[in-house]
Amino acid sequence: MPTYRIAPSILSADFARLGEEVRNVVSAGADIIHFDVMDNHYVPNLTIGPLVCEAIRPHVQVPIDVHLMVKPVDRIIPDFAKAGANIISFHPEASDHLDRTLQLIRDNGCQAGLVFNPATPLHFLDHVMDKLDLILIMSVNPGFGGQSFIPGALKKIAEVRQRIDASGRDILLEVDGGIKIENIAAAAQAGADTFVAGSAIFGKPDYKAVIDSMRAELAKV
Amino acid sequence: MPTYRIAPSILSADFARLGEEVRNVVSAGADIIHFDVMDNHYVPNLTIGPLVCEAIRPHVQVPIDVHLMVKPVDRIIPDFAKAGANIISFHPEASDHLDRTLQLIRDNGCQAGLVFNPATPLHFLDHVMDKLDLILIMSVNPGFGGQSFIPGALKKIAEVRQRIDASGRDILLEVDGGIKIENIAAAAQAGADTFVAGSAIFGKPDYKAVIDSMRAELAKV
Amino acid sequence: MPTYRIAPSILSADFARLGEEVRNVVSAGADIIHFDVMDNHYVPNLTIGPLVCEAIRPHVQVPIDVHLMVKPVDRIIPDFAKAGANIISFHPEASDHLDRTLQLIRDNGCQAGLVFNPATPLHFLDHVMDKLDLILIMSVNPGFGGQSFIPGALKKIAEVRQRIDASGRDILLEVDGGIKIENIAAAAQAGADTFVAGSAIFGKPDYKAVIDSMRAELAKV
Amino acid sequence: MPTYRIAPSILSADFARLGEEVRNVVSAGADIIHFDVMDNHYVPNLTIGPLVCEAIRPHVQVPIDVHLMVKPVDRIIPDFAKAGANIISFHPEASDHLDRTLQLIRDNGCQAGLVFNPATPLHFLDHVMDKLDLILIMSVNPGFGGQSFIPGALKKIAEVRQRIDASGRDILLEVDGGIKIENIAAAAQAGADTFVAGSAIFGKPDYKAVIDSMRAELAKV
Amino acid sequence: MPTYRIAPSILSADFARLGEEVRNVVSAGADIIHFDVMDNHYVPNLTIGPLVCEAIRPHVQVPIDVHLMVKPVDRIIPDFAKAGANIISFHPEASDHLDRTLQLIRDNGCQAGLVFNPATPLHFLDHVMDKLDLILIMSVNPGFGGQSFIPGALKKIAEVRQRIDASGRDILLEVDGGIKIENIAAAAQAGADTFVAGSAIFGKPDYKAVIDSMRAELAKV
Amino acid sequence: MPTYRIAPSILSADFARLGEEVRNVVSAGADIIHFDVMDNHYVPNLTIGPLVCEAIRPHVQVPIDVHLMVKPVDRIIPDFAKAGANIISFHPEASDHLDRTLQLIRDNGCQAGLVFNPATPLHFLDHVMDKLDLILIMSVNPGFGGQSFIPGALKKIAEVRQRIDASGRDILLEVDGGIKIENIAAAAQAGADTFVAGSAIFGKPDYKAVIDSMRAELAKV
Repeated sequence: MPTYRIAPSILSADFARLGEEVRNVVSAGADIIHFDVMDNHYVPNLTIGPLVCEAIRPHVQVPIDVHLMVKPVDRIIPDFAKAGANIISFHPEASDHLDRTLQLIRDNGCQAGLVFNPATPLHFLDHVMDKLDLILIMSVNPGFGGQSFIPGALKKIAEVRQRIDASGRDILLEVDGGIKIENIAAAAQAGADTFVAGSAIFGKPDYKAVIDSMRAELAKV
Repeated sequence: MPTYRIAPSILSADFARLGEEVRNVVSAGADIIHFDVMDNHYVPNLTIGPLVCEAIRPHVQVPIDVHLMVKPVDRIIPDFAKAGANIISFHPEASDHLDRTLQLIRDNGCQAGLVFNPATPLHFLDHVMDKLDLILIMSVNPGFGGQSFIPGALKKIAEVRQRIDASGRDILLEVDGGIKIENIAAAAQAGADTFVAGSAIFGKPDYKAVIDSMRAELAKV
Repeated sequence: MPTYRIAPSILSADFARLGEEVRNVVSAGADIIHFDVMDNHYVPNLTIGPLVCEAIRPHVQVPIDVHLMVKPVDRIIPDFAKAGANIISFHPEASDHLDRTLQLIRDNGCQAGLVFNPATPLHFLDHVMDKLDLILIMSVNPGFGGQSFIPGALKKIAEVRQRIDASGRDILLEVDGGIKIENIAAAAQAGADTFVAGSAIFGKPDYKAVIDSMRAELAKV
Repeated sequence: MPTYRIAPSILSADFARLGEEVRNVVSAGADIIHFDVMDNHYVPNLTIGPLVCEAIRPHVQVPIDVHLMVKPVDRIIPDFAKAGANIISFHPEASDHLDRTLQLIRDNGCQAGLVFNPATPLHFLDHVMDKLDLILIMSVNPGFGGQSFIPGALKKIAEVRQRIDASGRDILLEVDGGIKIENIAAAAQAGADTFVAGSAIFGKPDYKAVIDSMRAELAKV
Repeated sequence: MPTYRIAPSILSADFARLGEEVRNVVSAGADIIHFDVMDNHYVPNLTIGPLVCEAIRPHVQVPIDVHLMVKPVDRIIPDFAKAGANIISFHPEASDHLDRTLQLIRDNGCQAGLVFNPATPLHFLDHVMDKLDLILIMSVNPGFGGQSFIPGALKKIAEVRQRIDASGRDILLEVDGGIKIENIAAAAQAGADTFVAGSAIFGKPDYKAVIDSMRAELAKV
Repeated sequence: MPTYRIAPSILSADFARLGEEVRNVVSAGADIIHFDVMDNHYVPNLTIGPLVCEAIRPHVQVPIDVHLMVKPVDRIIPDFAKAGANIISFHPEASDHLDRTLQLIRDNGCQAGLVFNPATPLHFLDHVMDKLDLILIMSVNPGFGGQSFIPGALKKIAEVRQRIDASGRDILLEVDGGIKIENIAAAAQAGADTFVAGSAIFGKPDYKAVIDSMRAELAKV
């Protein structure tokens, strides 16, 4: 059985007490803190930046996984590295120089990831597998709340799983968008090993109960 | 004596416990919460957006004064209005349609302001005085921390004071950048009535002591 | 035999009497009105917008098929839906969020299409076949007049035909650029079923004669 | 008494029979055809381009006055000159090289104008008076319909009138936005000599009656 | 054995005596002058433009091969054609209209090429092989100096070689980035036939010695 | 009599032997080397960048005065400082943060200037006089060759001279565009003290003869 990781997205947490929220969700079993950055250009929303990352960094030991929904991406990467990010991922549409951006993330001491919108073709992976630590498949369109899991994402996850296995490398396969207890097993079945969940966790009073149920579902895969 | 207002900028607060921070600073005497929004395009930094505004809104009753360092500005204005902002200000360089943007802010139920970078000429005020509730003079360049008050800002504040008095309208004259106990009186002397302070307040253990000292300085003007 | 549709492009009509032109061309047998929108950014020309669409809408009952040569595309989609468009298509180069844009078109009550420039790879179709109602293959470069049909388009049409058939879905396969009586059969042979023609129809005195000849050619396929 | 000119904006005409509309409005006494070009970038709307200008050109002898609400502006200027435009005006916000753009319009055989949004300062006139044939003061924000005349425009018109008189040059002073029978005299009183009217004319059944009433009002100034 | 071509990049030459440099390197055996154009937008550097191309043109008879690292690309193409360029290549990320841009290069009397960044997928070749005279594979990220050859480029070169051979057309397969005596044979083995070298040649006192050594390596392939 | 400075623009020099050209023109009496940087975005031309500046630096001792016709400007400033520039100037239209950009130039050890296009209003000077070492008045539109001196520039130079004198600071007042022996005295009369000349010097066989004649004209002022 692969190692499964639960990555709560703090976009659904209470921003008025973020330190407490991330401590609680890690106590409840979270493996990773997922950090969604939007710049009001690549997506029509503006969320949180490096200063917020820096503020929560001392509150948890788990990796902080920064998903950049910004364009362009290069300038802000060192800021997030300094703010304590462990993984930084971005969209191929947001950089004309993917290889250079991946290298920049690594040169700043972080792991590097590439994120695929629902319609983005996988061919952007053709020449960069050896520089990737994470591939994130969006199962909703980023930048908007309240969307449901797009079923076609499962087939896409399966295709990425094949590419990862063929590469022989250790690359996280993360899925983000509409993940909840009811569908986490299907995503795992398709090949995902890291699961972003926002309101499914932070929208419930008992974070541990949700995460435990998710793990129970994963154990059945 | 004019009514003076102290407007702590939460950019210097602890983002891990923002609700507590804004409650504390209001208890300590703050009149307004100043909220700095940067989009990594108009300025090279990305800070906080509408979700964070919405999260702190229930914690305080004082006005939230949103300073948009974003370009373009129109799309995000309704988001901040919904998130509980009371005043929204933006830079003339960030909109080709100033009159329309000011009207949009008002149509969304907020007060409208215009912000001047240190070098921005005041002529952008020529035809919009009747649509303004606030004029913000930057005494540092926005988007960077750790800068000192630019002395030339005092003369600019004085010129704006003349324009406001000539208009006969009730417009806040706010100053932002390097304001502290030592120079707040000079800014008031020049004509400012609303004072943004970040690290001068949040960087000290006793917010009330700082705000009280600022008010004592203002009382001498 | 598939159902073939003739879609005259009003870009070649007389803009001084557009209502009469569209009535005439529909009387002459046109199945669809093709409406070319250029914004002087995605292509170096500016043509006609929603107001013109709204003006011709009451004159014909056939579908209006809006081809957006604009970038970005999302903001103008609701305007065209309100103006009476039935099908709205756009270029993958013009949106970083294809899935979201396709969904936006559908949420506004229209059918959705994707347009491929002569050199644009077909991989943009990989994950969106289930959200498409139309695929438009450009056989000239959009934005310029007086170009000839690019022969390589036939092979591309054939590849798209295979993808459509494999999907089992009902998707129009439209071709635009240099279509005339002499080559319409070849395009149909390759797999196209919807044919945009501009000057080939509006440049002739007898629209019905041209459309009848095109149908005669198609009947031989 | 100055020569007053009525310039109906075809944006309010019936786009399905534009040739007839412009012939009728000229028969009804219009002096100029005003042609509003929007590109969905400088303003959030897309209207009509050079092809439409070319189509109406043979229908009237009066000048066609093209107002470019586009950014950037230079590329499309020769297209409009070839399409029969007589006057081309643009916004100072839309070109970093005003002098060059004005010269480009003249090199293409047209008269050149500058357009001021309600909030745009007049200082852009400081160094170009000798290259201007028209100054257009917007009394609404361009790009949106159904707005009322902004009263502050009268004072601005008066300031421009002083600049024109001081220059000793023959420059049209045009006003656009919410002009109707009821306020045309006030605009003339302030110094305007050319009056754009859209729905005030095309929204009424008898164009001549409206234009005659406007002239009657102007005769009283 | 294929015809191998050595193409020194003048980016590493002494810009204070460029005429002498290109004459010397051609005397030393260079087949092509490679000319790197950066615009500080597509890549974060600005190098040399058409005026410099025009200045060196009379000094050599060999082809000048202009690599455009600019975005957008179309406007500057005629300038380089007039300045004496023989081959002009650009990046697929830099034009939404590849086919049109390739045609524009040819219409200006030059040969046309497409350049692939290390991570850029090869699918951009799918529909343009018949319009290409050169394919340039970057073995470093363009816009920065001092990088080493990315080993993955060899596999990519081999894939392009297969596409070229399958097309039956005469297309140069050029490689640029970290090429030196030690690895030129490996690049040739993979399928490249044209080799850009910058500091490997201009950084040494004896250009002829380097080029001769490169040819000796190539002779062993 | 003020100190007059002749600043030949190397844009008109022979780029094939730039080291020799700058040595010769300095021997002929040039006080400054003027270096025109265009990026194909702010102006429709691309010229020369930091590498060329670095190459000529060792050939002369006089200041190199870099005129940035680029947008945005901040990123490239440190590159030019490292390449040996002494003065760096830019256009107010090219930076939303003038004060910050001026400071950035100074922080990199260079003198800072602001450049005014023929139509650009002088109000951008209102709040930055204390951070300027040079003001450059364009007497042609930048980015194009072969233009004549715009007479209106003389009045503008006179206005700037008044502002400089009123400031009490030591600021160079430079003029660029169509300067030659015949009009250099008029420019000096208006208040300029630094004169850029391109083809007037480099287009003649005897640089010293031209510069001597210019000085003779200046001596008569």
